[in-house]
Amino acid sequence: MASTAARSRDLAQLRADTPGCLQRVHFNNAGAALCTHDVVKAQQDYLEAECLYGGYETVDRYEETLQSPYTELATMLKCSLGNIAILQSATAAWMQVFYGIPFQQGDRILTGIHEYGANYIAFLQVAKRTGVRIEVIPEDADSDIDISALEESIVRGDRKPALLAFTHIPTNSGRVYNAEAIGAVAKRHGVPFLLDACQSIGQMPLDVAKIGCDWLSGTARKYLRGPRGIGFLYASDEAMSRFEPGTLDMYGASWTGDAEYRMLPDARRYEQYEKYFAGVVGLGIAVRYANELGLDWIWERVQFLAAELRTKLSGLPGVQVHDKGRVLCGIVSFSKNGVSPEKMKAALLEKGINVKPSPKSSTRMDFLKNKLPDEGVVRASVHYYNTEEEVCAVVVAVSAVS
Amino acid sequence: MASTAARSRDLAQLRADTPGCLQRVHFNNAGAALCTHDVVKAQQDYLEAECLYGGYETVDRYEETLQSPYTELATMLKCSLGNIAILQSATAAWMQVFYGIPFQQGDRILTGIHEYGANYIAFLQVAKRTGVRIEVIPEDADSDIDISALEESIVRGDRKPALLAFTHIPTNSGRVYNAEAIGAVAKRHGVPFLLDACQSIGQMPLDVAKIGCDWLSGTARKYLRGPRGIGFLYASDEAMSRFEPGTLDMYGASWTGDAEYRMLPDARRYEQYEKYFAGVVGLGIAVRYANELGLDWIWERVQFLAAELRTKLSGLPGVQVHDKGRVLCGIVSFSKNGVSPEKMKAALLEKGINVKPSPKSSTRMDFLKNKLPDEGVVRASVHYYNTEEEVCAVVVAVSAVS
Repeated sequence: MASTAARSRDLAQLRADTPGCLQRVHFNNAGAALCTHDVVKAQQDYLEAECLYGGYETVDRYEETLQSPYTELATMLKCSLGNIAILQSATAAWMQVFYGIPFQQGDRILTGIHEYGANYIAFLQVAKRTGVRIEVIPEDADSDIDISALEESIVRGDRKPALLAFTHIPTNSGRVYNAEAIGAVAKRHGVPFLLDACQSIGQMPLDVAKIGCDWLSGTARKYLRGPRGIGFLYASDEAMSRFEPGTLDMYGASWTGDAEYRMLPDARRYEQYEKYFAGVVGLGIAVRYANELGLDWIWERVQFLAAELRTKLSGLPGVQVHDKGRVLCGIVSFSKNGVSPEKMKAALLEKGINVKPSPKSSTRMDFLKNKLPDEGVVRASVHYYNTEEEVCAVVVAVSAVS
Repeated sequence: MASTAARSRDLAQLRADTPGCLQRVHFNNAGAALCTHDVVKAQQDYLEAECLYGGYETVDRYEETLQSPYTELATMLKCSLGNIAILQSATAAWMQVFYGIPFQQGDRILTGIHEYGANYIAFLQVAKRTGVRIEVIPEDADSDIDISALEESIVRGDRKPALLAFTHIPTNSGRVYNAEAIGAVAKRHGVPFLLDACQSIGQMPLDVAKIGCDWLSGTARKYLRGPRGIGFLYASDEAMSRFEPGTLDMYGASWTGDAEYRMLPDARRYEQYEKYFAGVVGLGIAVRYANELGLDWIWERVQFLAAELRTKLSGLPGVQVHDKGRVLCGIVSFSKNGVSPEKMKAALLEKGINVKPSPKSSTRMDFLKNKLPDEGVVRASVHYYNTEEEVCAVVVAVSAVS
């Protein structure tokens, strides 16, 4: 196990734990970060065991190991084991909450302008089904959520909102919303609050009690450096006492009478029985690694590298860095005159550098309000295992593309 | 690739392709079958590529390979590529259909007495939400769905049913419902028909046009011998023209206007963006292997081995075989006096034999109607790669447990 490297925060060792560092300058950590060797090996070994002993029989053999992501995520989020569910993805987790809320005609959902497209499409689908109304809260001068506008909207509406649903960090820019401030308002007015922490989990410390959210959804593959096909949900005890999951199967509930089912007492009610079990094992290892490194250290280093990248990119002729905000994270978004995001991606890939185009359709309202380029922006997202040399390499490569 | 073995139907080679055959007598194929070496290796290689090149970058590299399960499933089910969606599990696929139907107060769902618990719990949850009514169609003297009772229920009801939802083969017994007969009735009366083919896909030929179902859900891990954490859905063009998926994300739909989204034109609208991609590759290989072997051959061999097992188990003192039906499949269910299913599982496992207890809660109505033991039954499920010698070994082992 690579725990020693994690504990010592020895960058050379952290990179040696990460085989992809030798192959690529990976600045697509907000897409899917590079896994450590141990995370991959554990999945491969689990698949081997399934192949030799059978799928169900391997679950029995790994019973204890399969619990590890629950423990590690509870440690990371500072909550109880019983508040964690493991699902297929952050989206699946978010949807298990959202589609479980019994919206009525005229109910209000409050959200932000950088809300993720997948979530917004779900709002629109449910609006069509139920007649729910979507209200978008503006940002303040610092590109953070305008907390007084949020509170005013809650108070002034014809009825209390049915849900506050906000994305902590958008997919297309470096800004971080003040989730604790939203949580405080939600608590004050007794409104359920669902936080999409897909981009924040693993890059910054998150304390669900301090945030005051009812649910928090996240993925394994991004800043947690876990496997694909795995996500998780935090659900508060109060949220579970008030709402059912969007769907229920025979894992989340038992069929106890002719017309009766009983849900699991804890957050596993949000799960389905079938999942990518090898990935559950991989997630446990990934979260433990992050916990051992410490989220404060990770956050500081990610912010440092991203700030370096922003400063250097801003100095290049024809390049615009788009990130604005009081607090900025590891996501750096930029454009270069005359170079489409797709062209930039392809040109950098040729030099062994991974970045990602972020299209308008992912965060449509943000693109419109903040007049971002219609063709999208380039997203370069750093993690703690990246280096200052890599930042320079990316800047040199960007400057060479025309 | 093991295609040669598959084409020649050489049992020794088919078993050599399956490393688990050397370790176990695997009679838990209705739980999760043993994968071939190629299916496992392909997943391990994919994970390695993700580790070296990045998760998103690997999707780009495997673009073509990731399409293979769509093509192979379309071949197997005799439908178009555009009618196939890949999801996390059979349950996820089934739920994307079921929770997408706009049930109204008083609407009727018709189902069978062996319906799977997970589905029934979903019925009950939606009944609580919407006031939908569940009607259970009895079986005929051959333990098949009573088709005249089904048709009578459709005609006599105060309104046309909103859905026919049937499980093709139950989780706890060898009987196979006549899905084509249900489909014919559904078509005649214009009622949507959702078939849960979790246990039938991969062990018998399925032709969606002949069956006449609107949707068919299935899993990779059972008779298809694919990875865990992957399932699929067939959706007919007509079903897609009438119903939306239960949930939508940014893969299934695009955010095209302030309050507007556009679904994908094909069945991929049922998918979510994030999935276990290595498993998608593995599924493609597994389905191709089955297609090359031929479903007719598989079906014949599975039925032959299961019949052998039933006959031999029936001859043992104190053993009751529970399977009844006009058509019987690879699932053999039995009990032994004085031996709980859990005890039988543990005793056989010690001898290297995998079987599974099937509890009352999985198919509650079947247990009650057919007076199956309250403590559950033992499920021994054979696949084509099992042998007559293994059947004998299981029978000897069962006879020794007391």
